[in-house]
Amino acid sequence: MTYFEDLRVGNRTEVGRHTFTAEEIKAFAREFDPQPFHLDEEAAARSHFGALCASGWHTAAICLRHVVLARHREQADRRQRGEPVAKTGPSPGLRDLKWPRPVYVGDTITFAQEIVELRTAANRPEVGLRVARHTGTNQRGELVYSVLSSTFIERRTHDLDGAQG
Amino acid sequence: MTYFEDLRVGNRTEVGRHTFTAEEIKAFAREFDPQPFHLDEEAAARSHFGALCASGWHTAAICLRHVVLARHREQADRRQRGEPVAKTGPSPGLRDLKWPRPVYVGDTITFAQEIVELRTAANRPEVGLRVARHTGTNQRGELVYSVLSSTFIERRTHDLDGAQG
Repeated sequence: MTYFEDLRVGNRTEVGRHTFTAEEIKAFAREFDPQPFHLDEEAAARSHFGALCASGWHTAAICLRHVVLARHREQADRRQRGEPVAKTGPSPGLRDLKWPRPVYVGDTITFAQEIVELRTAANRPEVGLRVARHTGTNQRGELVYSVLSSTFIERRTHDLDGAQG
Repeated sequence: MTYFEDLRVGNRTEVGRHTFTAEEIKAFAREFDPQPFHLDEEAAARSHFGALCASGWHTAAICLRHVVLARHREQADRRQRGEPVAKTGPSPGLRDLKWPRPVYVGDTITFAQEIVELRTAANRPEVGLRVARHTGTNQRGELVYSVLSSTFIERRTHDLDGAQG
């Protein structure tokens, strides 16, 4: 992870890609979202979705995996180059979780994150808040998933700020 | 599911309870959220969480399971009594996903949903929008999970409304 000062609004990174199989769609649904259109092809064909599709939370969980793995890759690269790695704090939460279109069997979803807001607060000079939009887009370029995620990121200059405050 | 007209703001239902084990916390994390404090007791002890804790998305997924199962139980009861079952549409999305406290190994979380808003729109007389807050509360009464979920629910009187419109 880069330090807060190195982040720029508009920065966009593709974090990974995933092709959803019927088997894993059903496995996730059996455990966490046992609705007929996530579990059974025939029931799904009769539903408003028209065919078997992934639980929206399954899409969210796969996006999470790619976001986490991309961060780990970046941190490993930095360590290998002998560069410092900024700390990230727990997420204060997410907003506006949306699934504009279903994810069907065989769809390949590309996950990306884009920085939409950067904020600092006088009472927390050691960190900045990064708001990023995580998205999933299918092979036809259609948005299937979107969420705004907030994370605290370590600032490089917090010692200086602290001394001035 | 009851019809939209039968819903009341403030109605609260407990949908289920779940005790989180170390094994399932790690299994979910391996698949979807491979951060050290969800995967390994010693790494978690050194983290800001202080001990192994569940991915927030794991808590969300378990809440989802209980919400879905509670709805299925209610629908089955209605069918058994020969009562009609209102249709529910896909969710237009969720807001304000929060994890105010970690879920640690052995914590028992009680999941509930409470109706916070009911809305109708002139251009969609057949359904109403129900906004419900889903929550998870641990055995000490502390909130560990909260999200606002919107769902379209069939209205009993939509034919009448349609005729009037």
